[in-house]
Amino acid sequence: MGIVTCDLAVTLDGLSATADQSLERPFGALDAETLHGWHLEHAAEHRAESDAITAAGAFVMGRNMFDPGRGPFDLSWKGWWGPEPPYRAPVFVLTHHEREPLEMAGGTTFHFVTDGPEAALARAREAAGERDVAVAGGATTVNEYLAAGQIDELRLHVVPHVAGVPGVRLFDGVGPVGWTAVSGRWTPEVTHLVYRR
Amino acid sequence: MGIVTCDLAVTLDGLSATADQSLERPFGALDAETLHGWHLEHAAEHRAESDAITAAGAFVMGRNMFDPGRGPFDLSWKGWWGPEPPYRAPVFVLTHHEREPLEMAGGTTFHFVTDGPEAALARAREAAGERDVAVAGGATTVNEYLAAGQIDELRLHVVPHVAGVPGVRLFDGVGPVGWTAVSGRWTPEVTHLVYRR
Repeated sequence: MGIVTCDLAVTLDGLSATADQSLERPFGALDAETLHGWHLEHAAEHRAESDAITAAGAFVMGRNMFDPGRGPFDLSWKGWWGPEPPYRAPVFVLTHHEREPLEMAGGTTFHFVTDGPEAALARAREAAGERDVAVAGGATTVNEYLAAGQIDELRLHVVPHVAGVPGVRLFDGVGPVGWTAVSGRWTPEVTHLVYRR
Repeated sequence: MGIVTCDLAVTLDGLSATADQSLERPFGALDAETLHGWHLEHAAEHRAESDAITAAGAFVMGRNMFDPGRGPFDLSWKGWWGPEPPYRAPVFVLTHHEREPLEMAGGTTFHFVTDGPEAALARAREAAGERDVAVAGGATTVNEYLAAGQIDELRLHVVPHVAGVPGVRLFDGVGPVGWTAVSGRWTPEVTHLVYRR
């Protein structure tokens, strides 16, 4: 059986988005360049870490990571990633609203799970088989799984920027945890840090 | 003229002490080994970073970094560091209570400054001459100087532990700031990260 991994790009103050997220600004007051410029603008330099983000056999994500909406789904919305999302595997989206599975090009199918984080993780584990499951975000979802002790490997990508505004911070409500630092790599645009429980 | 530096050992969630600090537990729920084991237990491996912490020509620190008390000073208390503190330079302690300068062995003299952070920094700059001034902590004092844009180089020493309890977090109230990452070094016990404004 694989492990449960989690990749998160965060600011120095631990934010992966600010509270004012919207369709136009999925990261709120942070822009994509600030948080994700390291793999968008420096792809070759960060190929290994970038590829690892989507290497799992199944994914779990929060509703807000899939969709800027909050109520019943707008069925014309098919995620932020265009017709061929990078996951190429089943993605289990945590939501309070029912929706039929959404099959995309390239092997990604979004499944909408209304019975909670534990059920979503169980379904992802089953779908992944021997491969890893990745908790894809956002921070609220990551914190839930961290608090439940269900993330085995946490891979942080820390950018040299302080958000300095409200937002969900990584580790909020998680409680004291000692991690083992297994590897790290510094670059000017991002520091990659890998921790295991 | 030198620059203003700041070294801070922090947990993954940005704490350098928890809210329940006391004489017995200066770091509160965090123990010295968790935050400072990297230089206490692995001194040779971290000699350069450790020496840099006390290399400045003058220092500024908050009252709580000098003294577990809050009211008028107990004059028998001469800091946490024994008869020969590692600073070997003037140290300006921010406080609301008057106290005569306290000269220690090895070149450290504690000066007690009651007219605010700006005055303390000005006095430290004057005392340091061509050398750097270091803001020695704690997090509340660091955040004040960060918010005022007065720290030129921030050196974080990030330990693989989540405090997960209340405390003053680095960057609280500082507002959005972009930093330039100038260097970094990963080790299993701590990641050293150096940022400039």
